[in-house]
Amino acid sequence: MRTLSAQEVRDVAAGSAVLGTGGGGDPYYGTLSALRNLELYGAPRLMDAGELADDDVVVIPFMIGSPVPLIEKFTFGREMQRSYEALGHFLNRPVAAVMPVEIGGVNSMVPLALGSLLGLPVVDADCMGRAFPEGQLVTLTLDGIGISPMAISDERGNSVVLNTIDNFWAERFGRSLAVDFGAIAAGVGTPLTGRQVRESTIVGSLSYAERIGRAIREAHAAKADGVAAIARETRGVVIFRGKIVDVQRRIERGWTLGEARLEGMGADAGATMDVRFQNENLVAIRDGEIVASVPDLITVLDSETGEAITTEHLRYGFRVVVIGIPCDPKWRTPDGVALAGPRHFGYDIDYVPIEQRWSRYRAVAG
Amino acid sequence: MRTLSAQEVRDVAAGSAVLGTGGGGDPYYGTLSALRNLELYGAPRLMDAGELADDDVVVIPFMIGSPVPLIEKFTFGREMQRSYEALGHFLNRPVAAVMPVEIGGVNSMVPLALGSLLGLPVVDADCMGRAFPEGQLVTLTLDGIGISPMAISDERGNSVVLNTIDNFWAERFGRSLAVDFGAIAAGVGTPLTGRQVRESTIVGSLSYAERIGRAIREAHAAKADGVAAIARETRGVVIFRGKIVDVQRRIERGWTLGEARLEGMGADAGATMDVRFQNENLVAIRDGEIVASVPDLITVLDSETGEAITTEHLRYGFRVVVIGIPCDPKWRTPDGVALAGPRHFGYDIDYVPIEQRWSRYRAVAG
Repeated sequence: MRTLSAQEVRDVAAGSAVLGTGGGGDPYYGTLSALRNLELYGAPRLMDAGELADDDVVVIPFMIGSPVPLIEKFTFGREMQRSYEALGHFLNRPVAAVMPVEIGGVNSMVPLALGSLLGLPVVDADCMGRAFPEGQLVTLTLDGIGISPMAISDERGNSVVLNTIDNFWAERFGRSLAVDFGAIAAGVGTPLTGRQVRESTIVGSLSYAERIGRAIREAHAAKADGVAAIARETRGVVIFRGKIVDVQRRIERGWTLGEARLEGMGADAGATMDVRFQNENLVAIRDGEIVASVPDLITVLDSETGEAITTEHLRYGFRVVVIGIPCDPKWRTPDGVALAGPRHFGYDIDYVPIEQRWSRYRAVAG
Repeated sequence: MRTLSAQEVRDVAAGSAVLGTGGGGDPYYGTLSALRNLELYGAPRLMDAGELADDDVVVIPFMIGSPVPLIEKFTFGREMQRSYEALGHFLNRPVAAVMPVEIGGVNSMVPLALGSLLGLPVVDADCMGRAFPEGQLVTLTLDGIGISPMAISDERGNSVVLNTIDNFWAERFGRSLAVDFGAIAAGVGTPLTGRQVRESTIVGSLSYAERIGRAIREAHAAKADGVAAIARETRGVVIFRGKIVDVQRRIERGWTLGEARLEGMGADAGATMDVRFQNENLVAIRDGEIVASVPDLITVLDSETGEAITTEHLRYGFRVVVIGIPCDPKWRTPDGVALAGPRHFGYDIDYVPIEQRWSRYRAVAG
C-alpha cells in the first residue's frame, strides 16, 4: 500500500489515456476529480491485490455512456456516492476497497477520486487491461463472474440497482438506463472477493499505466521522443505516422461510433489509414488491409507530445502517430478472442496478435 | 376481511374488465393465475383499508408493458415472486398486505394471485379506480407519494430495483426496462403505509369491480340485459351502439396504440364513432365530436353478453356497445384533470364530465 502524489495521479491519467485506446472519455475530467478529492480528502492509496484478504469485498465505480456528452455534463460527485450507498444497501456488507473496471480516461481515475472521498484503498488492477465499449467485455466474464449487482444513479437523484443473470444483460440494461439518464450515468457495482480480484482480473494495471505516464513525462523533461518512450514501455509498435484528413462520428445507443482517416507522412507518405472506433479504437486499416485489431490496443498519439488523443477529440489536421500495443494474455486465449475479438465487433477476420500481424505486413510491404 | 370464492374472483375479473377501459390486458390470464393459486395455496383474503394499521406496509404487484405480447408470453409466476423478494430485500421490513395499482384486466388479478401464494391479504383499493397506460397516472402522484421503489423482473432471472425522484422517472425507467425485458415484465413496488392507502388511493374499488361482475352474472342468469346492468351499477351512459368496421393498432415504446372505427346501428344508424386508445381507451369521437374522454372511463362491451372487450381483442365485425362511466372524484379535481385529462394524452380539449358532455350532446342531437 502506498499513497499517490498529485504527480503520480497525473502519471496514471496520462498512461491510462494510452491504454484507453481512444475511449473512456477525456482523462482530464477524471483527473480533475481525482486531484480535487486528493486535496479535499487526502491522497488515494494504491494497494496490491495480494494485500486483500480472500473474502474482502471490492467494488467498482464507473461512468457508463458516451464520452461526448461527458464533456458538457461532467457531474461526478453526489451521484457516484449515491450509487455507492445504493449498492451498499443492497450488499449489506462492508467494502474493503475500490478498483477500476477498465484502464481508460475517466474510468481509471474515478476509483482514485472515490477512494479519496470514502477513505478506501484502490486496488492496483482492472478488469480489461485497456478500455472496451461494452461492460461484458471484462476478464470476469471469461471466469463466469458477474458484473452485477450494480447501482446506477444520475445527478437528479434517481438510482437503480441491477441484478442480472449474466453480463450481457447487465450491459444491455446499463446502457438503456444510461441513455434514459441523459447519455451518461455514474455507477458502482461488481462486488468481488479479494480472491476473485487476484484470479480473474488484470493485476498491476494501474501501476502499468503509471509507468507509461512517467515515461512520457520523463521523455518530455529530457526533450526526448514521447512516442518512443511509450513504445518501449508497452512493447508497442508504431503502425502509422500521418495527418487526420477526415473524421466521421455519430452517437448511437449511448456509444460514439465512427472512423478517422489519415494520410501518411514521412515513411508512410502515399499510404492511408482508417481507424474505426466504438468509443474505443477497434481496427486500424492500412490501404485496405487490417493491420491491427481488438483485443490488441490501438492508440492515436499526438506526434509532437506523445499524448493520447481520445476519439471525441480527433480533428482534421492533427499530426498523429498510431501505435499498436499487445493486449493482456487473458484476451489472447480462444475464449478471450471469442468474447472481445474482431468478430464480436462485426469484422469478419481472424485475430492475429499485433506483433505477428505487424511483422507480416512489414514483410509484405518491405 | 373475507375470503373470495372462485366465483367472486371471476366477478372481480369481469368487473375489472369493464373498469379497465379496454386496457390492462385480457383478464382471462390474470384470472387463470388467481384461480390456480386459489386452488394451490388457498382463497385470497380481501381486506378493508380500515383494517390496516397506520404504519403497516402494503406493496403493489403489477405487470408493465404492452398487453399484446402478454397473450403469447404469459409467465406470471417465479418472476413476480422474484420481484417481491428483491423489493423485500430493499425494504428490509415485513409486508402486511398487497393491493392493485389499477383496476384492469391483469393488474387487478395479480394481487389476488400473489396474495394467495404468499398468504397476504389484498386491500380493497387501487391507485387509479380504472386502468391507465402510464404508471405515474395514480392518485398517489396527486399527493406527492412515490410509486418507487419498485423491483422489476423477467422470466430469465434478471431483476432491477428502481428508486426514483418522482413518478415520471419511475414510469420512464420502468417502461424502458419492460421493453428490454421483451415488452412485458413483472414488478412489485410502491410500498405504502396503511395511512397512505386510506388517504391517497381509491378505496373500495376491488369490491366495486366485484359488484359490477356480479351484476353481469346475475343479468345473464336472469336472461336480462348485461349492458343495462353495468350502466346501472356504474351510473354509466350508453354512448354508442354499432359494429366495428376498422381497427388500427401498433406497438410503440411498450404501448399498444390505435383506434377502432364503429358504424352505428339501431338508434345510432348513420353515425360513426372512433375510439382511440393507448392500451386503454382515451377518447370516443362521434361524427367528429368528442363525446367522452379521459379521465372518465370508456369501455367497449360485446352487445350480446355485456362482456368488456380489451383493445387487443377488438376485431372487424364485432357488434358492440360503447359505455361511458364517471371516473372517481379524485380525477375531477384541477390537479387530477391536469395529470390524467385529455391534454396529457395530446387532445387539446377541456375535460367535461361524461354526464354533462353526454347530456349536452343529446340536447344538440335532439
